[in-house]
Amino acid sequence: MIKAYAASSTGGELQPFEYDPGPLGADQVEIEVDYCGICHSDLSMLDNEWGMTRYPFVPGHEVVGRVVAVGASVRHLKSGQRVGLGWHSSYCQVCSECMDGDHNLCAKAMGTIVGRHGGFADKVRAQASAVVRLPESLPLESAGPLFCAGITVFNPLVQFDLSPTAKVGVIGIGGLGHLAIQFLRAWGCEVVAFTSSESKQTEALALGAHRTLNSKDPAVLKAATGSLDFLISTVNVKLDWNTYLEILKPRGRLHFVGATLEPLDLGVFSLLGGQRSVSGSPVGSPATIARMLDFAVRHDIQPKVEVYPMSRCNEALARVRSGKARYRVVLKRG
Amino acid sequence: MIKAYAASSTGGELQPFEYDPGPLGADQVEIEVDYCGICHSDLSMLDNEWGMTRYPFVPGHEVVGRVVAVGASVRHLKSGQRVGLGWHSSYCQVCSECMDGDHNLCAKAMGTIVGRHGGFADKVRAQASAVVRLPESLPLESAGPLFCAGITVFNPLVQFDLSPTAKVGVIGIGGLGHLAIQFLRAWGCEVVAFTSSESKQTEALALGAHRTLNSKDPAVLKAATGSLDFLISTVNVKLDWNTYLEILKPRGRLHFVGATLEPLDLGVFSLLGGQRSVSGSPVGSPATIARMLDFAVRHDIQPKVEVYPMSRCNEALARVRSGKARYRVVLKRG
Repeated sequence: MIKAYAASSTGGELQPFEYDPGPLGADQVEIEVDYCGICHSDLSMLDNEWGMTRYPFVPGHEVVGRVVAVGASVRHLKSGQRVGLGWHSSYCQVCSECMDGDHNLCAKAMGTIVGRHGGFADKVRAQASAVVRLPESLPLESAGPLFCAGITVFNPLVQFDLSPTAKVGVIGIGGLGHLAIQFLRAWGCEVVAFTSSESKQTEALALGAHRTLNSKDPAVLKAATGSLDFLISTVNVKLDWNTYLEILKPRGRLHFVGATLEPLDLGVFSLLGGQRSVSGSPVGSPATIARMLDFAVRHDIQPKVEVYPMSRCNEALARVRSGKARYRVVLKRG
Repeated sequence: MIKAYAASSTGGELQPFEYDPGPLGADQVEIEVDYCGICHSDLSMLDNEWGMTRYPFVPGHEVVGRVVAVGASVRHLKSGQRVGLGWHSSYCQVCSECMDGDHNLCAKAMGTIVGRHGGFADKVRAQASAVVRLPESLPLESAGPLFCAGITVFNPLVQFDLSPTAKVGVIGIGGLGHLAIQFLRAWGCEVVAFTSSESKQTEALALGAHRTLNSKDPAVLKAATGSLDFLISTVNVKLDWNTYLEILKPRGRLHFVGATLEPLDLGVFSLLGGQRSVSGSPVGSPATIARMLDFAVRHDIQPKVEVYPMSRCNEALARVRSGKARYRVVLKRG
């Protein structure tokens, strides 16, 4: 039996919950959970915002732990190894996206918490190819958030072959944004943090931003016209996107990793005149996750975390919901 | 004196008009016009749609002719050479875009018909670097439209390093679209023409499209979900862009070369989930124009034109305005 914490209804409190995972699949591994980060999408799923939650619902898709059981056909992982598990827990492995190494774009990829039980538990299972080994020197306590928040902001740098000569803006300094700043700084870019919070402006500089811009001051945004090559938006609220398009240089890109629900209302002329692009991306592939972990170790990039015992997961979820966490909440088991 | 045709007020009839161009600039050439294509933006300028027209207004920015005078500092062009001139008639030459070869993105680039007199004339002048030599074997009569319509649809193939393995849709089969089909076919791509006109469906196949889809049939568009790598929109009306986003495969791009005035209303989830991009681009640089001409000759790509004597330019403009031209109207001087 796996001992987990589950909500039995939409937005409900999590309660201890046991389930029998059945026999281990030949392509799976079982992970004993050490830490599990909390992502805003755990709340979206808990609240069934996307209409695809099944209850009892066990959140958690930023898992760090040890392999404790290995399926019959798994060759590349062994019991005892430190691993992590993110948003995806399996891929079809045969579609053209998987065959191209874009497992994260596989239409049949399964979410770790979508129709399955996640990492708020003592154990969790996943297809072995969705599980990534941790470098020895990666601090365990803060590693979990790399597997969702981290890879979400790191992946675009790889996908668009971002040049270290680029000037890059990060819109929204939270769980994702505070990691984007660190990755971009280590990538060699000029990093500009857009935030309206004074304390976050100070913290953004400490995290590696070269400068900050007050995103609530139209005059400041206007003055930045034509100054950046790349903008990465981590927010899930509607901003004046056409103003941000104008902040881009010719050939610039406005890239979304935060899921704003309102349509973008983009003017075509801003795209046309300066050959600009607007795009989005989800989490990354296992290969890109492994590359990110290596890069994070080399540059000592770490999520800033607030740690709660897993038994206080409701309190931890409330902390995430408050928007006050700086910058990511992590559950520690036991 | 240069003998031209000009409108003296917004949307007015063109009348014979003479002007003294003054001394030839050291970096300029003077071109004797043989042919001049008509672009929809000649009408937009005639009608002052973009609020930047100066009257008397001489349209024409798809010029083909011969160099008849060369400024003192011009070294790479000589009198008697066949050349073409498109949307831009000069660049600043010193900004980072110009220095990078992206003259078409130069913020100080001057339009051939913006505050200057265009190619509905016996002669026209331009900065020599904005003037491109014609390959010997390019048919003169139909070459003009390559300099605006042609380069506008050819440029994205170069800019995005489009793979010949790509499956590409062309939205709108008109002056731009009929050239996009030809370029894409020669590029090696699978080419799908989106049009609601039955006769254009037939013509699109003759131009090189592998198949056509009726853009007014929602069931047809729905069935195309996830089938294309690249969509190039040449239309200037609002379509259901989110449906077109869904027609793209993961990593696909919806690219605008037609200037729709209404905002795009794009849903972020379509961008996020499939790592899709939306973008736009204007005409190309002189170097890309030269590359396009070489490619057009090698593959016998030619605009389909209806030729009018320049003296009947009002009739020719009305033909363009009617939307019935198949596919580009060209004026012949003399």
